[in-house]
Amino acid sequence: MSVTAKLLLHCPDRPGILAEITNFITVNGGNIVYLDQYVDHIEHVFFARVEWELENFAIPRDKIQDYFSTLYAQKYDMSLRLYFSDVKPRMAIFVSKMSHCLFDMLARYSAGEWDCEIPLIISNHPDLEPVARQFGIPYHVFPVTKENKAEQEQKEMQLLRDNGITFIVLARYMQVISEQMIEAYPNHIINIHHSFLPAFVGAKPYHQAWERGVKIIGATSHYVTTELDAGPIIEQDVVRITHKDTPADLVMKGKDLEKIVLSRAVSKHIDRKVLAYKNKTVIFS
Amino acid sequence: MSVTAKLLLHCPDRPGILAEITNFITVNGGNIVYLDQYVDHIEHVFFARVEWELENFAIPRDKIQDYFSTLYAQKYDMSLRLYFSDVKPRMAIFVSKMSHCLFDMLARYSAGEWDCEIPLIISNHPDLEPVARQFGIPYHVFPVTKENKAEQEQKEMQLLRDNGITFIVLARYMQVISEQMIEAYPNHIINIHHSFLPAFVGAKPYHQAWERGVKIIGATSHYVTTELDAGPIIEQDVVRITHKDTPADLVMKGKDLEKIVLSRAVSKHIDRKVLAYKNKTVIFS
Amino acid sequence: MSVTAKLLLHCPDRPGILAEITNFITVNGGNIVYLDQYVDHIEHVFFARVEWELENFAIPRDKIQDYFSTLYAQKYDMSLRLYFSDVKPRMAIFVSKMSHCLFDMLARYSAGEWDCEIPLIISNHPDLEPVARQFGIPYHVFPVTKENKAEQEQKEMQLLRDNGITFIVLARYMQVISEQMIEAYPNHIINIHHSFLPAFVGAKPYHQAWERGVKIIGATSHYVTTELDAGPIIEQDVVRITHKDTPADLVMKGKDLEKIVLSRAVSKHIDRKVLAYKNKTVIFS
Amino acid sequence: MSVTAKLLLHCPDRPGILAEITNFITVNGGNIVYLDQYVDHIEHVFFARVEWELENFAIPRDKIQDYFSTLYAQKYDMSLRLYFSDVKPRMAIFVSKMSHCLFDMLARYSAGEWDCEIPLIISNHPDLEPVARQFGIPYHVFPVTKENKAEQEQKEMQLLRDNGITFIVLARYMQVISEQMIEAYPNHIINIHHSFLPAFVGAKPYHQAWERGVKIIGATSHYVTTELDAGPIIEQDVVRITHKDTPADLVMKGKDLEKIVLSRAVSKHIDRKVLAYKNKTVIFS
Repeated sequence: MSVTAKLLLHCPDRPGILAEITNFITVNGGNIVYLDQYVDHIEHVFFARVEWELENFAIPRDKIQDYFSTLYAQKYDMSLRLYFSDVKPRMAIFVSKMSHCLFDMLARYSAGEWDCEIPLIISNHPDLEPVARQFGIPYHVFPVTKENKAEQEQKEMQLLRDNGITFIVLARYMQVISEQMIEAYPNHIINIHHSFLPAFVGAKPYHQAWERGVKIIGATSHYVTTELDAGPIIEQDVVRITHKDTPADLVMKGKDLEKIVLSRAVSKHIDRKVLAYKNKTVIFS
Repeated sequence: MSVTAKLLLHCPDRPGILAEITNFITVNGGNIVYLDQYVDHIEHVFFARVEWELENFAIPRDKIQDYFSTLYAQKYDMSLRLYFSDVKPRMAIFVSKMSHCLFDMLARYSAGEWDCEIPLIISNHPDLEPVARQFGIPYHVFPVTKENKAEQEQKEMQLLRDNGITFIVLARYMQVISEQMIEAYPNHIINIHHSFLPAFVGAKPYHQAWERGVKIIGATSHYVTTELDAGPIIEQDVVRITHKDTPADLVMKGKDLEKIVLSRAVSKHIDRKVLAYKNKTVIFS
Repeated sequence: MSVTAKLLLHCPDRPGILAEITNFITVNGGNIVYLDQYVDHIEHVFFARVEWELENFAIPRDKIQDYFSTLYAQKYDMSLRLYFSDVKPRMAIFVSKMSHCLFDMLARYSAGEWDCEIPLIISNHPDLEPVARQFGIPYHVFPVTKENKAEQEQKEMQLLRDNGITFIVLARYMQVISEQMIEAYPNHIINIHHSFLPAFVGAKPYHQAWERGVKIIGATSHYVTTELDAGPIIEQDVVRITHKDTPADLVMKGKDLEKIVLSRAVSKHIDRKVLAYKNKTVIFS
Repeated sequence: MSVTAKLLLHCPDRPGILAEITNFITVNGGNIVYLDQYVDHIEHVFFARVEWELENFAIPRDKIQDYFSTLYAQKYDMSLRLYFSDVKPRMAIFVSKMSHCLFDMLARYSAGEWDCEIPLIISNHPDLEPVARQFGIPYHVFPVTKENKAEQEQKEMQLLRDNGITFIVLARYMQVISEQMIEAYPNHIINIHHSFLPAFVGAKPYHQAWERGVKIIGATSHYVTTELDAGPIIEQDVVRITHKDTPADLVMKGKDLEKIVLSRAVSKHIDRKVLAYKNKTVIFS
């Protein structure tokens, strides 16, 4: 397959948008290899993801963004994001002490499942340095205290910039991310957390879930916003448990779930198939 | 199969309890056809469900409860519940206006899936009377207002007593049950409610779930306690949704889920396989 | 919402098809309220489902089919199906002796969940006549023997024609449908059958599944083709089981699964969201 | 927790077995920390898993097997397996070229999730040697041809013996294991394979599943017997797919499923919670 352009967009729904855009691509020699669209008939918003081959496309790739912006962005009050298949997203992984998500991600990366780069891992603890070394990825430790937090995050952000990081995955990183970093990567920081039916607040949620005798535990992966654990949800899943599961069993089943749910969310993000809108996501097929 | 006795018990865990009880049944000619036990090694509580044929059992059935109480209840600080397979539980169904759970339950009852009696249906609205009539079950309407609520519930409880009701199923009954009725049927009132990850408080939860873009919705069936929706959970399940589901789709998928989850919980209760302890349940196999 | 037209189509994929069609609808005053499309990039086939309001649509409804046929069918080698939202599909249900699927379907119909008509139920046994009567639907018994099978099916087909039946649901109908009837309702007869991992041939599959100790049982709903149980799959689902489930438990769990899977498939069919192509289906969102 | 003994047993069901055994353990000072039992009332077989602390147990650990054999094995026609918590199972992993299962297993091992040893990895290809080196585990390559197969397997078996291997995991090992090796490790070789509803024979099953438009794909982990893919099933699971999934998507989803299902099966085996009987398994809680 030749290099492709991937366009994600949303705008107020009006008749003819899709016709106009697909027509424009086709007329200019672009071969559309993917098209998924969705209309929210309640909010009246149109969403689409179009991918086409650049090989015979009349518009030079560095002008495409301009053309779409000029032709459609204002006319339709449209938000656009454009990607090229030969430009890989660059991921930074943030970890603390738990390795299950990190291993699952690095195994996929190492096996070639993910079309991305992972230039570095950042942690507030040295514990997982051996895992990083095992996979040959630089591991940077920034111990965080109440006093040095702002300063350490400055260094982290410098490191992210120096490495051209385009998105961040919090793989069980047990630190709250500052507003400043969140705003530097809006809808580009992916987090994973366990979820319960009903929800439990306070410490030791798995123990609370056990005391309450829940029959299902879940995990949720979402983009990080400034409101804690309340950003747009990318992926969720659950696993059944019984009264025979101890709190330790719940933790183990929760870990298995977390790593799969997080990796699914990251896969979708790498494939440019997630479009965050307001506080929800459209997940293209 | 001959008539069986079903014994459910729990007590502080001590060595030899199960040996003693199964030995006692066996020595007295009881043929054990079912045995499931579980030890909570965190709280140190022993739970068991034993079922045996009465055919050659040396102890008369009306003395069995006495024997177990005398022999074990005090010695082991044991709570006991005894049932006989030829004594059917008698269920009252409470409904309001939604029919999906009611139809599912009456279809099972009508098809002989459930070994119980359903002498009556109680409602605060006349809407589902045709469904009751269709299945030939008496339908009693008790419209509830703030003023007459206590009085109406008195009449309902009288009706339950007159009909020898042993447990109640709230099949989308949109009224809060009073403490008095809950205490008359402790861990014998089964409710169903939708559940979300994360939880949503306030009105129109399906609409909130849609706005939040959740990827999963759930349903929880539980025993009713005086704390709203916080009683011991019997059964839970979830269904996946996507951004393409409208709030109306969510409601429909939620209804399908609710009826199945509620019916599973009711089945377990009818089979005497649920043992509530503190605020959780042991579900025997 | 005003009356809508629903157009389902597929054709060899070529650039610009969707643009042309949506443009045509829009230009002629049709307000598109739904659009889902899918390109099979392996077989190079384009599929779409478009729904638009007829209120201000310039083309009279009885000419729409003609227009699309003339404009696109030949040009794009396109197969088209057109429906109107105010013309309800008319379903005949075929049953034998098991009631679980029938009850679930009639309960949905009765509760207004399904936008269809059910003018009649056909059976080879009288057993479920009381259920039909309960819901007020005519029940026709055609006992089938090897000798009279062809003749009885003739009568059934006459009855279907007389009642304007547009599709048939085999709700655990334990008779093989003849080629003639299948060809009269191509991809319009929906069946449900249990499915196992691995598959079991021969009698008593649930007993075989139990002997094999499978951990999952499934159900598959599909369109009936002349090859037994091999038509395009509409919906499948599974339920977990354990070694503690008896063959009777498997049968019960299988029944619960069958009715839900069948009803989901029927819902999709009623909503005109299933497009069968070769031996598979595209399920629109 | 002190060292424990784990006893797995099965025998024809007779009254009093469990009472006798638990009584024997208790009387001799053993503190039972786990007991799960199951009676197959169709085949009339009794199964149990008992675990007790050895700290104050009157019988020396090297005599326990003798005692149980002498006291119960013949009397009850009982099959027994005894393990001690401080003797870890020793696993050999067989791989070919695909890394997803291997990574998942080594990540768990490396993170301390599994109470076992992995002294070596065997492969018919050199491809995954870097993964083994990364985790510091010896990797032995035995290229297999039709001519040298018997000879190579002899060397493999010598290696297994030299390393005290107690069970084997085929982590996508694309070679049929010989009867000789299977008989050396009866119900101790764990395999994983994809499963489909319906089943597909022949090459490229994922492509066949795609052509057939299945809505679910599965994976099955089982003990290897001399009949291909027909041994006792330990664990199964499925994942939903849609018409939008390409054969490549199916392969990817299948891989995610395979690794989780295989690891679950291996976990159960390591915990001594699987009892194979005839061609099925009892999975203790």
